[in-house]
Amino acid sequence: MAYARYRKRFEELMSSADIQVNGDRPWDMQVHRNETFPRFFAFGSLGMGESYMDGWWDCEQLDEFINRLASADLKSMLRPTDLLLSLQARLLSPKGDSSYDGEGARHYDLGRELYNRMLDKRMIYSCAYWRGAESLDEAQEQKLNLIARKLQLEPGMKVLDIGCGWGGAIHYFAEYYGIEGVAVTLSKDQHDAATELCANLPVEVRLQDFRKVDEKFDRSYSIDMLGHLGNKDYRKYMEVVKRNLHPGGLHLVQTAGSENSTAKSDPWVNRYIFPGGNIPSPKQIINAAESLLVLDDWHTFTQDYDRTFMCWNANLEAARKDLHDLYDDRMLRMWRYYLLSFAGVFRSGMSQLWQIVFSEMRSGPNLGHIR
Amino acid sequence: MAYARYRKRFEELMSSADIQVNGDRPWDMQVHRNETFPRFFAFGSLGMGESYMDGWWDCEQLDEFINRLASADLKSMLRPTDLLLSLQARLLSPKGDSSYDGEGARHYDLGRELYNRMLDKRMIYSCAYWRGAESLDEAQEQKLNLIARKLQLEPGMKVLDIGCGWGGAIHYFAEYYGIEGVAVTLSKDQHDAATELCANLPVEVRLQDFRKVDEKFDRSYSIDMLGHLGNKDYRKYMEVVKRNLHPGGLHLVQTAGSENSTAKSDPWVNRYIFPGGNIPSPKQIINAAESLLVLDDWHTFTQDYDRTFMCWNANLEAARKDLHDLYDDRMLRMWRYYLLSFAGVFRSGMSQLWQIVFSEMRSGPNLGHIR
Repeated sequence: MAYARYRKRFEELMSSADIQVNGDRPWDMQVHRNETFPRFFAFGSLGMGESYMDGWWDCEQLDEFINRLASADLKSMLRPTDLLLSLQARLLSPKGDSSYDGEGARHYDLGRELYNRMLDKRMIYSCAYWRGAESLDEAQEQKLNLIARKLQLEPGMKVLDIGCGWGGAIHYFAEYYGIEGVAVTLSKDQHDAATELCANLPVEVRLQDFRKVDEKFDRSYSIDMLGHLGNKDYRKYMEVVKRNLHPGGLHLVQTAGSENSTAKSDPWVNRYIFPGGNIPSPKQIINAAESLLVLDDWHTFTQDYDRTFMCWNANLEAARKDLHDLYDDRMLRMWRYYLLSFAGVFRSGMSQLWQIVFSEMRSGPNLGHIR
Repeated sequence: MAYARYRKRFEELMSSADIQVNGDRPWDMQVHRNETFPRFFAFGSLGMGESYMDGWWDCEQLDEFINRLASADLKSMLRPTDLLLSLQARLLSPKGDSSYDGEGARHYDLGRELYNRMLDKRMIYSCAYWRGAESLDEAQEQKLNLIARKLQLEPGMKVLDIGCGWGGAIHYFAEYYGIEGVAVTLSKDQHDAATELCANLPVEVRLQDFRKVDEKFDRSYSIDMLGHLGNKDYRKYMEVVKRNLHPGGLHLVQTAGSENSTAKSDPWVNRYIFPGGNIPSPKQIINAAESLLVLDDWHTFTQDYDRTFMCWNANLEAARKDLHDLYDDRMLRMWRYYLLSFAGVFRSGMSQLWQIVFSEMRSGPNLGHIR
């Protein structure tokens, strides 16, 4: 077969990221099947991810492999002749796109067991704040406390949680800061779990689109939810936030982001992990908020997301034996690829992690010293 | 004369900011001449400022007077009939615009004595950082240390100061952090003073437009300089910063700003204080930096500028007797109006004060915990 020229060019590209095919360093690739090379040229990052899921190649430190690729900016190295290679490879790899069986749609429907094993005890599925923390449990509590301090939460305040997950955050704020909460989510499973969790607290959990919320709060926040929206929804998001804040109210957004304004996420991520999502740029966020909300503070802690993803993956690896009873190998490889590639992407800085505070009024809270 | 209807409408407008004409609270106006009322309608904020300079009215707490006006958003209260009042008032107030004698151009040519008396011992003419500080000297040192920590200055680093003033900042960084500096300014007086100040340090001071700088630095910064540029120059500023940074370099901007994107500053400020300047909005800054520099951190400490301006004014009041030998009364009233109205504007939050950190590369320094 004509794999040789695909392999040759593939090795050239990888070497620019100091990655070797079948090399002996932990971030090198171990390629088990030659079809991996044309599949990469045919389907790019989608082919890389899917061939990993199929077990065509392995890597001891997948996170570091991805970090190197992201840092090397492979795209800028592609030559016109690579397009020809790509077209020919598509003929050679009839599998590719058609192998899609809808795994992506199942991201939040995997059953609670996987998340139970992966996440901290409060089931917080977002970047933790590791400053001074030693465990994931601590780092997630740190993050919640950081948010509470930036929002200057006080007993009796009415607080809106946009995209509340399994309710861990609003539960914490109600329990430790004495606020009264409304939490909205689109997931039935998350709604039921959050309702049960907050049963004895003044928290109302709603199965509701955040766009429909129309009442006034003292504070509101969303944690790693903005990236699930498309870039055309950011303005609407800010309008809804503005409409639902009392004068002098504060809003905090925690989100992954990118320095470049884009409309689409990575094809593999879009298919298997977060369909329809897109991480925002500073420009997209600021333009969406212009004349609605006043920017008060922008805090970057990207490297904390690397550590969070590494921790989630380690938790799953530790539980792999049990999980094998529930999930097939391809699904577990997909999940590992997701967690470790995200760790690598944040390590490279290709994506970043931000907490941004907006105030409803222009005389903001002057809270920049809170970290 | 027909002052009555101007006064009546003027009093209506002022009462929306809880300000009385000839009232007895410290933020009330004491109006000495009835011509003040039509002059306000004829020339707006320019008429207010100029009539104050002319001694037509006084106010015990001018800063609080301005804070109240800024918070009340007077403009939104104007009615169509006020336009008629304005046109008629222009006929009544032939002085107004024509009284301009070019004071504005003299802002930095006032002679060093006024700045000597007004500023701290290092002659830092920008917002101080008051966290934990008790005097202006301390607060300015705090600010310099804050910048040094955010820029992660290390001995031997090459650092560019864009708009260096009298050299106080670059001198401090060279002396206490061991950096090697290049500092540029457009003012001959500031160039000479900075050169003398830094004589025994590895600092080169240049009488040069920052746009002409074309070499690589590890770090660069500008402190309260961006507002002197017009809004069309922000992109050029970011391009110059990018061009002059080594890979992995950091840049810090300290600037006053506004949540709204505008192209013009207040007419009185434009004429008498900062001709041609315009404070930027987050949108203008972020759009100017898009695809050139990566946003790392946005820190707001607006209330510190209120305190800094109050401190500068108190220093001048304490030196007023001496200064009367050098400057006439109108000039000193202009200066007081400038300092106290800026204090009030920052107190109201109509303008804000930001330190923003950008990195040249996307894997930023993760320095958000530094405050």
